[in-house]
Amino acid sequence: MSRIKLTLAYDGQPFAGWQSQRGGGGVQDFVEASAGRIAGGRVPVTGAGRTDAGVHALGQVAHFDSPVPSMGPSEWQRALNAALPNQIRVLRSTCAPKAFHARFSATGKVYRYRIWTGAVLPPHQFLRAWHEPRLAGGTDLLRAALQEFVGTHDFSGFSANRGTVPDSTIRTISAIKTIQVGPQITVTITGSGFLYKMVRMIVGAAARVATGRDPLEKIAEILKRRSPRNNHVAPAGGLYLVRVNYRASIPKN
Amino acid sequence: MSRIKLTLAYDGQPFAGWQSQRGGGGVQDFVEASAGRIAGGRVPVTGAGRTDAGVHALGQVAHFDSPVPSMGPSEWQRALNAALPNQIRVLRSTCAPKAFHARFSATGKVYRYRIWTGAVLPPHQFLRAWHEPRLAGGTDLLRAALQEFVGTHDFSGFSANRGTVPDSTIRTISAIKTIQVGPQITVTITGSGFLYKMVRMIVGAAARVATGRDPLEKIAEILKRRSPRNNHVAPAGGLYLVRVNYRASIPKN
Repeated sequence: MSRIKLTLAYDGQPFAGWQSQRGGGGVQDFVEASAGRIAGGRVPVTGAGRTDAGVHALGQVAHFDSPVPSMGPSEWQRALNAALPNQIRVLRSTCAPKAFHARFSATGKVYRYRIWTGAVLPPHQFLRAWHEPRLAGGTDLLRAALQEFVGTHDFSGFSANRGTVPDSTIRTISAIKTIQVGPQITVTITGSGFLYKMVRMIVGAAARVATGRDPLEKIAEILKRRSPRNNHVAPAGGLYLVRVNYRASIPKN
Repeated sequence: MSRIKLTLAYDGQPFAGWQSQRGGGGVQDFVEASAGRIAGGRVPVTGAGRTDAGVHALGQVAHFDSPVPSMGPSEWQRALNAALPNQIRVLRSTCAPKAFHARFSATGKVYRYRIWTGAVLPPHQFLRAWHEPRLAGGTDLLRAALQEFVGTHDFSGFSANRGTVPDSTIRTISAIKTIQVGPQITVTITGSGFLYKMVRMIVGAAARVATGRDPLEKIAEILKRRSPRNNHVAPAGGLYLVRVNYRASIPKN
């Protein structure tokens, strides 16, 4: 059985997040069901990480072991795209070494968060950007607030409890880039890994500073306090998983 | 009663086109229902033109007579946006002269048609672009085919019968601009007016030429033949009503 590495994009709106759900509805459920139909048997698919309901992916990564010897990665891509709903697409598909694991082999991730600061949210941006007109003119303040997060920190103050407690809440953010084009602000965050809801809480906290509702010092304070009492979570629809990074030895596909 | 001019944007996907439907579901139905709820009585709303089910608008124009003397155009904008579904937005609202009519005062329209030529349609482009990989590398041919339509022609070969026969099927297309960025082709068509399905039939016919399925001469032939026997209609999801033009005396809003 050869291991296949998939790069997937999906629209977050119609799905209950990446993770398999008891009643179906997770992106993983759709990918597993499609792969299972193609292979004629159960095919477990492992993603690089969960994305919440409503969160988009431009480059989610997943792996599975192909039980069909005659099917190469491009046959799998074609067959999956024919079987999957249009809101989930396999962008690329390659063979990966047996040791490759979509989650454990990942060395980092890139997320993007989109904010629309105009008075009216264009209908085509609905559920694809956070409509926050209070951030109009606040890009420099937002950028400054976001810089507070760059570096290695204990991010337990910026994560929601999901039942399971992670081994460590220390993460490294290597870069945050904040770009404004007209009424749209795009925040790109690169890091070693992210806790549950971490990006949305980072953006939520920085937006409060940029709109004058919290002092800049508040961010360092929450980071230091290390307890998850920051409830300002930016909406799911603005968040995009852009890329999952792996060591150079892993095929880029 | 003061006449209000609205500039509207909508996502075509959830609606049955602009035109009011017996069972509701047209964008016009939603705008009239919202205006009626705000005014506490029936408020007829007139659009610059119909858009089909699935067709998007970035700048549809409509007018109505406000039965609420205390409400100015910006109050109407705010109230309508609060009442309308998020997939319909009032972008601008101004007072217009009594003689202004969204449809009869229009001097022209601008439409855009978006084509995705990559092998895989990104999920966020689903129902927002025509997925036509056969046009990959065919931008120059498409541009040449589209140029055949520029000028004043009898477009009866490029319109679908909608029951009502228009007074004249002669229209003037002043410009067609075809731009390619990566796998995306954007066609912008400016004209004095458009018949039913005319833009989608123009793009459909040009695409057949650009993919080698029809000779370039076919276009002049259909134009000359003047009978609606061209059945190659590009899908609704790629089409956007960008702007409605009026004489300079009409407030631009």
